[in-house]
Amino acid sequence: MRVVLVAGTTETADVPGISAAGADPELMRHTPGADLDIVTHGEPTLAPVVPVSPSGCPTPAVATRAARELLGFDVVCVDAGIAGRTGSPAIDVGNGPGADVREPTAVPDAEETYERARELGAALPDDRLVIGETIPGGTTTALGVLRALGEEPSVSSSLPENPLDLKRRVVAEGLDESGLAPGDAAGDPLRAVAAVGDPVLAAVAGLTVGAVESGTTVTLAGGTQLAAAAALVRHAGVDAPLTLATTSFVAADDSAGIAGLTDSLGVDLTVTDPGFDAVEHPAMDAYVAGEAKEGVGMGGALRLVDESAAASMADLRERIVDVYDRLLAGREPGEDASGGGTATSEAPEPER
Amino acid sequence: MRVVLVAGTTETADVPGISAAGADPELMRHTPGADLDIVTHGEPTLAPVVPVSPSGCPTPAVATRAARELLGFDVVCVDAGIAGRTGSPAIDVGNGPGADVREPTAVPDAEETYERARELGAALPDDRLVIGETIPGGTTTALGVLRALGEEPSVSSSLPENPLDLKRRVVAEGLDESGLAPGDAAGDPLRAVAAVGDPVLAAVAGLTVGAVESGTTVTLAGGTQLAAAAALVRHAGVDAPLTLATTSFVAADDSAGIAGLTDSLGVDLTVTDPGFDAVEHPAMDAYVAGEAKEGVGMGGALRLVDESAAASMADLRERIVDVYDRLLAGREPGEDASGGGTATSEAPEPER
Repeated sequence: MRVVLVAGTTETADVPGISAAGADPELMRHTPGADLDIVTHGEPTLAPVVPVSPSGCPTPAVATRAARELLGFDVVCVDAGIAGRTGSPAIDVGNGPGADVREPTAVPDAEETYERARELGAALPDDRLVIGETIPGGTTTALGVLRALGEEPSVSSSLPENPLDLKRRVVAEGLDESGLAPGDAAGDPLRAVAAVGDPVLAAVAGLTVGAVESGTTVTLAGGTQLAAAAALVRHAGVDAPLTLATTSFVAADDSAGIAGLTDSLGVDLTVTDPGFDAVEHPAMDAYVAGEAKEGVGMGGALRLVDESAAASMADLRERIVDVYDRLLAGREPGEDASGGGTATSEAPEPER
Repeated sequence: MRVVLVAGTTETADVPGISAAGADPELMRHTPGADLDIVTHGEPTLAPVVPVSPSGCPTPAVATRAARELLGFDVVCVDAGIAGRTGSPAIDVGNGPGADVREPTAVPDAEETYERARELGAALPDDRLVIGETIPGGTTTALGVLRALGEEPSVSSSLPENPLDLKRRVVAEGLDESGLAPGDAAGDPLRAVAAVGDPVLAAVAGLTVGAVESGTTVTLAGGTQLAAAAALVRHAGVDAPLTLATTSFVAADDSAGIAGLTDSLGVDLTVTDPGFDAVEHPAMDAYVAGEAKEGVGMGGALRLVDESAAASMADLRERIVDVYDRLLAGREPGEDASGGGTATSEAPEPER
C-alpha cells in the first residue's frame, strides 16, 4: 500500500472570492508544495508557508501527516504543475500550472500529463494505491469537469459558506470560452480536462487508470475533486471497482452531494468521522464548524487509521494535536511559517 | 537520519573504454534512474533496465536497498540531471546532464545546482544525512575535480582493471580545454566543478555545506567521488567534521588511495566490510573479485547496518540475496529487466 499525493496549481484559484476571502494568490501558490512538505517532513522545508486559514484552520495535510506518523505508510508525491517550491521529492508528470478555466484551454498538456501519470500508475509495484490531491481552486475545476462530462455536479468547498454561485458562473464562462455545452465532453475525458479542468485531475485520472489496468486496487482519497477524477475514469470507459474515501465533513455537506455522485458513477463511498467534536483544539474546531473539510488525502488517511489495528481514532486526534503544535504552536492566526515579518505574513485558506 | 541519493549524468561516461568495456551509452544513461527505483521500490519501475555488468555484477543499489529493507530508513532522491527515466520521486536541483569534461565547460550550471542543493541541505529537518551518489563516469570527473583543486588524486573504478591512464588523459585534456593547470582552482570549488566536474559533485557539495551549516551531521557514503565532494567542501572553506563511509572494496584498492586523501582533507574515514567472501553468490562474488566496489550509498548503507542493533551483516547478506533474486533470478547475465528481446537486451556495467 502506498499513498500518492498529486500536487499542482490552477490559475482559477486567483479568481477573486472563489477561494477564502482575503487570500493572497502569491501565498496560495505555495500551498501544494507546503502540503507535500508537511506530509513528507512534518514541516515546510523549502515551501515558505504553513497553509492555515485566517481563522486558524490548518491544512488537512496535518491529519494526513498525523496518520502517517502513526501507521508509517510510504508516500509518493507527484508533481502535476506545482507553482511554488517544495522540499519533497516528487515524480514530475506535468508541464506547469493550469490556466484559468475561463481561458479557451485550461490544461493544454492534459493528454501528456494523463499518459505520463497512467504509465506511472501502471509501473508502481504496490498492490494498493490511495490517491489524494492538493490544488487550491480545485473544487471549481472539478465542477467544470463534471459539467463538461454531463454528470450531476457535486461541489464542496473549504469555506463554511460555499461560493457556489460564483463557481457556477466561472464554470459557465469557462465552458462557453471552450465552445462546450454541458455534457458535450461525455465520453471524452481529456477534452473535459483540457477545456475546464486542472492538471491534477488529468494526473489523478491517469494514475487511476494505469493502476487498475495493472491490477492495482485504487482508493481515491478526497471529496468532490476525487469524485470528478472518478468521473473522468468512468468516461474513459474503465469500469473497474473504485472506492472514494472521504471525510464526514464532506459527506455532511449538502451542496457536495457526494453520495449521489459516487452512486451514479458506480464508485463505492466510505465516509470516516475522525471524531473531532470530542476535542476542543484549534487543529480540529474549524473542521467541526465546516471549514476545510478534506484535502491532501485526508479522507483516505482517516480510512487507513480506521482499517488499522495499530492506531485508534483517539490516537489520531492526539497525534494531530502534536503535529499542529509542532507547526503552529504559539503563532498568531495568519502568522507565517518562518517566524514573521516577511512577505508571507498572511497565510491563505486554500480552497481545495 | 535520512539517506540522500544524488543522481545525475555526465557525457564523460560516453568516452569509449572509460567505463565497462562494451557498455552501451544509451543503456548507461538509464543507470541513475534505475538505481533510484531499486532503492525506492525494490525494482525498476519507469527505468527500463536493471544495471548489471556483463559478468553479472549487480549495481550496488542492491546492497543499499537490502539495508533499507532491514533498517527502514527514509530515502530522499535528488535529481542533479538524470538523463533517463525514473519512477522515484526526486527533488530537482540540476539543469540536465553534465557535458564531457573535455568540453571547455563541463557543468555550466554548477553554481545554481550548488546553491539549490545547499538550500535543500539546510532545509531538511533531519539531524543526520547520509549522502550517496549514482552517476556513471563519476570517478573520472572526481579525478578532474581533485586535479583542478590541486589535491592528491585518488580514483577508484568499477572495473577490476582501473583504466587510470585513460582517465588521466581525459582529465588532462579537460583541464587543458578549460584553461586550467592542476591546482589552479584551489579555493574555488565551483570553478573546479564547472570546468571538469559533474552536476552530482556540485549537488553533493552544496547539500553537505548547507547541512553542516545548519547543524546537521553529514556522512558521505561512497568512495572517491564522495571524497572529491569532500574536497570541494573543504575548498569552500568549510571545516566542519565530516565522515566518509566506504566499503572495504574501495579501501583495498591501492589506486584509490582513499585513506591518504581523506586524511589530507581532515575527513574521518570509516570502512565497512560486508563479509561477501563468506558467501558464494552472484550478488557478491564480483565484489570480492574487485568489480563495482561502491556506489548508490553502499558504503553508508553498510555503515548503518554496522551501527544498528536491529540487523547483522549476515542478515544483510541474506537480504542482498533476496533483493538480487527478485531482480535478477533466472536471467542470463546481460539480459534486460523487461524480459528480453528489446533494445535494452545488454545491460551496462556502470563506472561510478
